[in-house]
Amino acid sequence: MKDYFKLDEWKIIEEGFKPGENRFTESIMSLGNGHMGMRGNFEEKYSGDSLQGTYIAGVYYPDKTVVGWWKVGYPEYYAKVPNATNFIGIDVRINGEELDLACWQVNSFRRELNMEQGFLKRTFTAENDAGVQVAVSARRFLSMARREIGAVSYSITPLNQEIELELVPYLDGTITNEDANYGEVFWKASLSKAETGVGEPAGRGCLALRTKKSDFLVAAAMEYKLNKHPVEITACQEKKYVDNSIFLTAKPGEEINLTKYIGVTTNRDYPDDDTISQARSRAREARNAGWQKLFAEHSRAWKDIWDEGDIRIEGDAAAQQGIRFNIFQLNQTYTGHDPRLNIGPKGFTGEKYGGATYWDTEAYCLPFYLNTRDNEIARNLLLYRYHHLDKARENADKLGLDGALYPMVTMNGEECHNEWEITFEEIHRNAAIVYAIYNYIQYSGDREYLADYGFEVIAEVARFWEDRAHFNPRKNKYMILGVTGPNEYENNVHNNWYTNRMAVWCLEYALETIDYLKDGYPGSFQKLWNELGLSAGELEKWRDMIDKMYYPYVEDLEVFEQQDGYMDKELKSVAEIPEEDLPLHQNWSWDRILRSCYIKQADVLQGLYFLSDHYDLATKKLNFDFYEPRTVHESSLSPCVYSIIAAEIGYQERAYELYLRTARLDLENINKDTEDGLHITSMAGTWMSIVHGFAGMKLKRIAGEEKEERILSLEPFIPEKWKSYSFKINYLGRILNIKVTSTGSRVTREQGEPLKILLEGEKQKI
Amino acid sequence: MKDYFKLDEWKIIEEGFKPGENRFTESIMSLGNGHMGMRGNFEEKYSGDSLQGTYIAGVYYPDKTVVGWWKVGYPEYYAKVPNATNFIGIDVRINGEELDLACWQVNSFRRELNMEQGFLKRTFTAENDAGVQVAVSARRFLSMARREIGAVSYSITPLNQEIELELVPYLDGTITNEDANYGEVFWKASLSKAETGVGEPAGRGCLALRTKKSDFLVAAAMEYKLNKHPVEITACQEKKYVDNSIFLTAKPGEEINLTKYIGVTTNRDYPDDDTISQARSRAREARNAGWQKLFAEHSRAWKDIWDEGDIRIEGDAAAQQGIRFNIFQLNQTYTGHDPRLNIGPKGFTGEKYGGATYWDTEAYCLPFYLNTRDNEIARNLLLYRYHHLDKARENADKLGLDGALYPMVTMNGEECHNEWEITFEEIHRNAAIVYAIYNYIQYSGDREYLADYGFEVIAEVARFWEDRAHFNPRKNKYMILGVTGPNEYENNVHNNWYTNRMAVWCLEYALETIDYLKDGYPGSFQKLWNELGLSAGELEKWRDMIDKMYYPYVEDLEVFEQQDGYMDKELKSVAEIPEEDLPLHQNWSWDRILRSCYIKQADVLQGLYFLSDHYDLATKKLNFDFYEPRTVHESSLSPCVYSIIAAEIGYQERAYELYLRTARLDLENINKDTEDGLHITSMAGTWMSIVHGFAGMKLKRIAGEEKEERILSLEPFIPEKWKSYSFKINYLGRILNIKVTSTGSRVTREQGEPLKILLEGEKQKI
Repeated sequence: MKDYFKLDEWKIIEEGFKPGENRFTESIMSLGNGHMGMRGNFEEKYSGDSLQGTYIAGVYYPDKTVVGWWKVGYPEYYAKVPNATNFIGIDVRINGEELDLACWQVNSFRRELNMEQGFLKRTFTAENDAGVQVAVSARRFLSMARREIGAVSYSITPLNQEIELELVPYLDGTITNEDANYGEVFWKASLSKAETGVGEPAGRGCLALRTKKSDFLVAAAMEYKLNKHPVEITACQEKKYVDNSIFLTAKPGEEINLTKYIGVTTNRDYPDDDTISQARSRAREARNAGWQKLFAEHSRAWKDIWDEGDIRIEGDAAAQQGIRFNIFQLNQTYTGHDPRLNIGPKGFTGEKYGGATYWDTEAYCLPFYLNTRDNEIARNLLLYRYHHLDKARENADKLGLDGALYPMVTMNGEECHNEWEITFEEIHRNAAIVYAIYNYIQYSGDREYLADYGFEVIAEVARFWEDRAHFNPRKNKYMILGVTGPNEYENNVHNNWYTNRMAVWCLEYALETIDYLKDGYPGSFQKLWNELGLSAGELEKWRDMIDKMYYPYVEDLEVFEQQDGYMDKELKSVAEIPEEDLPLHQNWSWDRILRSCYIKQADVLQGLYFLSDHYDLATKKLNFDFYEPRTVHESSLSPCVYSIIAAEIGYQERAYELYLRTARLDLENINKDTEDGLHITSMAGTWMSIVHGFAGMKLKRIAGEEKEERILSLEPFIPEKWKSYSFKINYLGRILNIKVTSTGSRVTREQGEPLKILLEGEKQKI
Repeated sequence: MKDYFKLDEWKIIEEGFKPGENRFTESIMSLGNGHMGMRGNFEEKYSGDSLQGTYIAGVYYPDKTVVGWWKVGYPEYYAKVPNATNFIGIDVRINGEELDLACWQVNSFRRELNMEQGFLKRTFTAENDAGVQVAVSARRFLSMARREIGAVSYSITPLNQEIELELVPYLDGTITNEDANYGEVFWKASLSKAETGVGEPAGRGCLALRTKKSDFLVAAAMEYKLNKHPVEITACQEKKYVDNSIFLTAKPGEEINLTKYIGVTTNRDYPDDDTISQARSRAREARNAGWQKLFAEHSRAWKDIWDEGDIRIEGDAAAQQGIRFNIFQLNQTYTGHDPRLNIGPKGFTGEKYGGATYWDTEAYCLPFYLNTRDNEIARNLLLYRYHHLDKARENADKLGLDGALYPMVTMNGEECHNEWEITFEEIHRNAAIVYAIYNYIQYSGDREYLADYGFEVIAEVARFWEDRAHFNPRKNKYMILGVTGPNEYENNVHNNWYTNRMAVWCLEYALETIDYLKDGYPGSFQKLWNELGLSAGELEKWRDMIDKMYYPYVEDLEVFEQQDGYMDKELKSVAEIPEEDLPLHQNWSWDRILRSCYIKQADVLQGLYFLSDHYDLATKKLNFDFYEPRTVHESSLSPCVYSIIAAEIGYQERAYELYLRTARLDLENINKDTEDGLHITSMAGTWMSIVHGFAGMKLKRIAGEEKEERILSLEPFIPEKWKSYSFKINYLGRILNIKVTSTGSRVTREQGEPLKILLEGEKQKI
């Protein structure tokens, strides 16, 4: 799929009608605005292959857990993101025949995702068996300025004869999910209402549905405008469907335009009995404002985002298009406007992984939002977890453990993934949540957050590790048994190096935070100390664990062993896998994957990335050389971390290859599953590959300075092909502009006070 | 639940009505005849707590596998045994009021399972709010002589006034399963027919249902006889239900009896279009034969079983009742009449574990049937696997492996359990299937079986091990990674000692068999050699694996390590678990169980039991002492193996305790789950505890004799409390009677030629 889309710095362009690639392109052409989103489905009916998908943030269905042998502690449900009311739909009938590109001859076809302004445009000409030719142009956007509003502008022009035209804007709630047991339907009807003749020669409709079991009410309302007075309008109102049928005639060359204005609200934001009227108000408000005004507001919002968050690359259109696609989709998925929301691995682009929150947020996404947007947004991501602390305590308690264990997958703080090896064992996620606090404090300087919220989470996670590890007197070491590391191609292993190391890091950071709070916020600290029931003895235990943690290590190769027994595997390289066996997870049975040496995603390397400052280049190089050839990168979260380490250890070519793999993962369908939706959370990794990888941005401890002082350091390189790249970052209240060219790099301060940084190892005042 | 049932050598007696224990007693009071079976449910309506269950051998429903993240190789379905048509039901209305023990006052109540003759009897007296008192006596059996026939004799006597009585014998297909997703129903209606006035003053009915997806047709037909001419009979016929309503009057003291005759057939045994008429013929045939004749045949069949298979214990009623209950239920579950059937872990006593075949059959059940019944029955159990060899080859191929991997759970040779850690990893089952062949050959002397069937299975299993293990050049050893051993409280471990050891044993036995067949059956052998594509090089590889297999071992303690890393666990003893945490699987989350040192069932010890002859007493003692205190015996398959080893190493008291735990596991509800059904397969372990444990029966190699020659050896002890015990075994065509008293033991030959055995280490000619 390397050259499927045209190379363009601001657009993703599909030329020609390729039904076999429709699901793939639908994923790529997804739109979202943080509140709602949808795949690049057609407005008019399409009977060919398509994954219909419209998703509403925070709305889920709790799918009952079903396993052969029930095990204590299993979550009751797996959260699914249900496909919601199709509100973009406009059926088109021409001389009584349905316009359906699966049945008509398509003469030209183009889909274009405009990333600069955030809209989707589709144009085509088509001809039916009777020789009627029409041209269609459709544009749509979901407003970034008014989140509950979307608009579709649909124009149709007969090309060679006068036609009788029926345009049917509708709201359809008879949708299904592909990911459903026995075809189960997730929505109940709540209200449907279709009217005609509501001001102008127009009509409107409203449809409200309620999810089964979880009881989310989602209301969609539509109004519309026409550029020609219709012959007749009729309304249809069924249990889960409403429409207006608009009858017109159109002469050859006469463009008929219908602009559909949509309001979508949920009872997450309004009282139940107000939700429907709010959706109606939004649709009315949108129609009153009109396309031009709405679009101007929307594209202004995008301009602001790009001003702050763009990465500009000169001399490499593929790299430029790739990074922009990533930044665009991230900003479509999560806007930070609602602290109850988070970042689903597929955002609004598919059903899989349930739109739920994973550790991806803290480990991959946080740095992106933290450095490219207002601190408030990253803070909201942190508060999301803070608000779930009690549920995380309950979760640990369910497993018989002290402290807090954050869920692996969640919609509302409750664990909602139903495989034991993930839910119960992939506990390293707890460390990422603490690491995100550390990251936030370092880049924002908002240390008060520690006293107000952060420390409670840090302490409860430390306590979890304290209880989860045990002391092995035979080896005089602490051990952590029965875990799944970041590499999910291993389950239930003992002493995953990454998990053990990050657990210790959490304890170290907890102690560091205690020292800091004691001095900086003595009052708050004493209160927290008492409330949490901490004791000197407990801190002593943490110190003992830090001293005596066991880390698997391969003496002869001087590499960290991913977990106990990894070296007993048949040690092969990815190059030895026959091409047709890849990706392994689609071709090999699970046990074969588990016992193989192949690694899904960065595991030891993830630790070397997070704790970069603790390991020297030689160590990173040895571990990269050992693990990279065994890594299949079948998690989209993998190549970015390898790219960053490769950049650091001077493997510039490999860093660039891995960068392209992450940047163009979806555009080139590298993991062969983009049809299911985009890999949203890993897109932040692409951003990291440039900023942390190529530009080498990190925080370094300064020898001799205060213990917790770290300084921003940049050690950029530029891929051979590139003329320059530049980006901005938000750091300690400043906006810094970093530009790297083949002759050198320059950091300028666009906002805020002067500060010192390290640039290529030299201290500079900016 | 220690004294819930009266101690009686031939009966299980429940006195008094205890609604809270009803599910438990229903399990205990189950009846079966190899073709069908049912729990001890009441005939008349009961609105209190009850697990309704009627099951038909070989009939299953393929329940779709549903997991969060699909993995390649997952079986499509989990086989469920569907609760089938309730054919024992007889509703009773007295003066228009339903007789329902949940609503009536129960004055006396007794349920009695007669194991000697194989029937269930229930008597009670009850009184309603209007003061009407009745006495009821109900008996039923499922014929061991005519498997498709069952009969219920139901008598009711008004005690203090004349009553208007309505008796409603019915067939009810509107039954449900508790183990069903979203209340799904597994049966479709096929035919229902109710008639009255069919000869005598009587009627009849027929109901046929078909399982969804798997398309099994099960037909049930009823006829009946009354001891009094009724006032009226009406018939009711609904989609999945038929009945006759019989109206009578009865004077105080007048016993009204209805005897219901049932025929049950399936399209497993007849062409689809003949199945229903066959059920009708069976019901008619039964009614013509009448209760007395049917019951006489049935109890004669039981007499034959007891003559061959009883174990008699003098001086310990609890032990006697326990062993008889086990022998009784085993013979109810599997009769060997149909080689397509096998032994479900819960037989006909509950829904769980799907009535499917597990390794329990080969590892636990085979010796029981082999030594207590005709060889044909054990041979049928072996042929069951032989007939599934091609499916086992496919199963290995699905996992990317050569040879054959038998399913962990199956109805028809296909794997039908949907958890990867079991399905993909509990591969030791393959060894048990070979071990069963070895056992069969040793005890039956039927060596031709090796040439005709056995060797193909042995060779394909050997080949599976050959491919599944890999050579680790770092340690110069073969290893088997990513397995689940018999102890299912560990998953995905490396180098489970039992698995590695049994894999090597399979290779050794394969080579031994090749040597034997080469000499004994050169023609057949050459054919097999060619068909299987064996080569000298492959055999060389097997020998190399035998030489260089890796076995985890704890040097300082001189014990075999259950798997790599076991010694890194927190090593506690079961005594340290708080009482309220037991059983662990009902109280601890799965990860906690996995990382604990606690063992569900014999694992290393299972190997020491199977390969007893290879290990000396000191080794057995060290391993018993180390593992037994860490074993929670939460598999019913566990205590018997520990009991056998305890007996062997002279821990007689512990052997006896463990024996009682296995013998009375269900009668005393020791694992707190008997309400779900009985632990049928482990009942064979109870038999082994006496025969292999107390009596010390095993096959010993004789030094200096021909390689494959083994001799039967007995080294009995008798528990202190017992006066004597005796049993018969079928060995190499002889029936031997073994009697052990506190003063000594005696072996007599009841059938067949003289032979030599070892008794207490001395060679004797019998």
